[in-house]
Amino acid sequence: MHTLHVELGARSYPVYIGRDLFSDPELLCRHIRGGQVAIVSNETIAPLYVPRVREALGERQLITEIVLPDGEQYKTLHTFEHILDRLLRDQHNRSTTVLAVGGGVVGDMAGFAAACYQRGVDFVQVPTTLLAQVDSSVGGKTAVNHPLGKNMIGAFHQPTAVLIDTDTLHSLPPREFAAGLAEVVKYGLICDAGFYAWLQRAMPRLLAREEAALAEAIERSCALKADVVAADEREGGVRAILNFGHTFGHAIETAQGYGNWLHGEAVAVGMVLALRLSAQRGWVEPGAVGILEELLESARLPVNIPPDMPPSSFLDLMARDKKVLDGRLRLVLLRAVGEACVVDDVTTGELELLLRAAVGRADTTC
Amino acid sequence: MHTLHVELGARSYPVYIGRDLFSDPELLCRHIRGGQVAIVSNETIAPLYVPRVREALGERQLITEIVLPDGEQYKTLHTFEHILDRLLRDQHNRSTTVLAVGGGVVGDMAGFAAACYQRGVDFVQVPTTLLAQVDSSVGGKTAVNHPLGKNMIGAFHQPTAVLIDTDTLHSLPPREFAAGLAEVVKYGLICDAGFYAWLQRAMPRLLAREEAALAEAIERSCALKADVVAADEREGGVRAILNFGHTFGHAIETAQGYGNWLHGEAVAVGMVLALRLSAQRGWVEPGAVGILEELLESARLPVNIPPDMPPSSFLDLMARDKKVLDGRLRLVLLRAVGEACVVDDVTTGELELLLRAAVGRADTTC
Repeated sequence: MHTLHVELGARSYPVYIGRDLFSDPELLCRHIRGGQVAIVSNETIAPLYVPRVREALGERQLITEIVLPDGEQYKTLHTFEHILDRLLRDQHNRSTTVLAVGGGVVGDMAGFAAACYQRGVDFVQVPTTLLAQVDSSVGGKTAVNHPLGKNMIGAFHQPTAVLIDTDTLHSLPPREFAAGLAEVVKYGLICDAGFYAWLQRAMPRLLAREEAALAEAIERSCALKADVVAADEREGGVRAILNFGHTFGHAIETAQGYGNWLHGEAVAVGMVLALRLSAQRGWVEPGAVGILEELLESARLPVNIPPDMPPSSFLDLMARDKKVLDGRLRLVLLRAVGEACVVDDVTTGELELLLRAAVGRADTTC
Repeated sequence: MHTLHVELGARSYPVYIGRDLFSDPELLCRHIRGGQVAIVSNETIAPLYVPRVREALGERQLITEIVLPDGEQYKTLHTFEHILDRLLRDQHNRSTTVLAVGGGVVGDMAGFAAACYQRGVDFVQVPTTLLAQVDSSVGGKTAVNHPLGKNMIGAFHQPTAVLIDTDTLHSLPPREFAAGLAEVVKYGLICDAGFYAWLQRAMPRLLAREEAALAEAIERSCALKADVVAADEREGGVRAILNFGHTFGHAIETAQGYGNWLHGEAVAVGMVLALRLSAQRGWVEPGAVGILEELLESARLPVNIPPDMPPSSFLDLMARDKKVLDGRLRLVLLRAVGEACVVDDVTTGELELLLRAAVGRADTTC
């Protein structure tokens, strides 16, 4: 087992990465300070992992199991309210701990409920998808979606611990596994060219879900994320680079309806667009786009925009993005592979040029 | 105009107290960093003050007015969602400022919406009731109610400024004015015996709404609250003393249905009960209860529990209070007038004795 630390002063917490983490109940129990626990999971994950988590919890004064429907389309204020209803009905108090067992959707909603229940209770993340393990479980971003935009309602609420059991990846469907790889690729692109090069070599072993390669990819991703979060907890500055590919990606997710495209799939296409824009500005070699497309395709990820999305739809949806400040769209681009920067001077003309070409490619490949 | 400061490091903010604060637009505008503002108010308050606030705001890129129905019964997740819908529909971004113009209900909901919109945007409080001016506008507590308990869903989200215009009190209905005085009395009881003595002398001038007495009462209340909040922002310790009378009070509000008893009215009765319990323990002179009842009655506040609330109903509702930790009810009592303490060893027997006697008194006076 490896342990990383997210350094945030009084809100610091450990991230444990390893196999079969629940065989040692002490690891989980040391992060639960009261006698009350609420396990939040979903219909797909609960039967697989909740019994093991319950066993590790041992005897408790109160354990509530909250099983949500599975899917991004349920990441709503309505489901958030359902979690709070259950906590209140079972009389959970301020010293309770909310335990999220599942992917990013479960973690985001359980975390937001923990942030708001009685103005904030403890929260432990047990991410069971690659996406959640390398991205959403670390950093304290919690949220639900709104029909007008993704993650528009939420809070910064750091967990007290993150337990990443790599064994959970063996039951992950291939499409979801690939979606997680998109975020792993992102870390290489934005801040570690060496890791990016390693990924190009290691992709076959990752796709075969070889334990050592998985642990290495997860640990390097979490370490990079922990550094960025420690430097900028509430996204006042450098943390924004973690959104590389996400502004385009969110537009795709919103246009297609949540749950039809997986987040990682939309981010994969978004990264291609953002890299292409960086190349259009002459910041990276045009050949870098082909290398990225090849890497993503080898990971079974899409690289083209949905054929039914005209540029105007992108532009409208991007104008509503959280990264818009005083009317200026902020985008993450690459100065070079491994070096991201945030810009707010991208013109509508540049975007139209980029998106028209992208539509052309999407038409050709369909 | 007087200026206090709530000292919370990077989250410090000023509290301005004075007359006609909007005649100097600069005062408000220095706390609004972007071109977008959302004014949240209610049907009663909006016609009285929103035009003056709008004038002080001058020309802006975007001003959204969100006018809520008036009353504690609307302090719900449903109204919270309505505020967020409006912000999204008008495409407010992360640099927007939410401006709460109204009483505690408006401030709590606007503040919670500001806390959650895009994971947190700026928030300025313009409290227009005495209760909001001396209590809820300072300290960063925001929340909505749930059918199973008051303020159960919320966040700590500090404002960037609080503007207390004492002129707004002249249009406040007598019952709401009295409800605010309950919290003023609370500050004296929990931490300033001198202020408590002053209140007993100054009550006639306060009831006549004499400017100098009002300004003095508001400033001393805010200063006491600012000190407590600076020492303990998230209620890990000393801040809990601000809940003096509130555990009993919340039980009354919940049992009677939000909005039927005003918060300050319920707190007035709650303070009498908490002081009586302190006397029952021999910590304060029995005569102190009579002095408090006389002071509250002179301020036209209730001192007896609702006649239809049996002790069992109190005990059930109090068990759900946020101040319950690991099954132990935490209550604020007085060691002496001006000196509050938090205890977690009150027995059911003590509470039954207290409440049975209280029911007896309520029956007699009805």
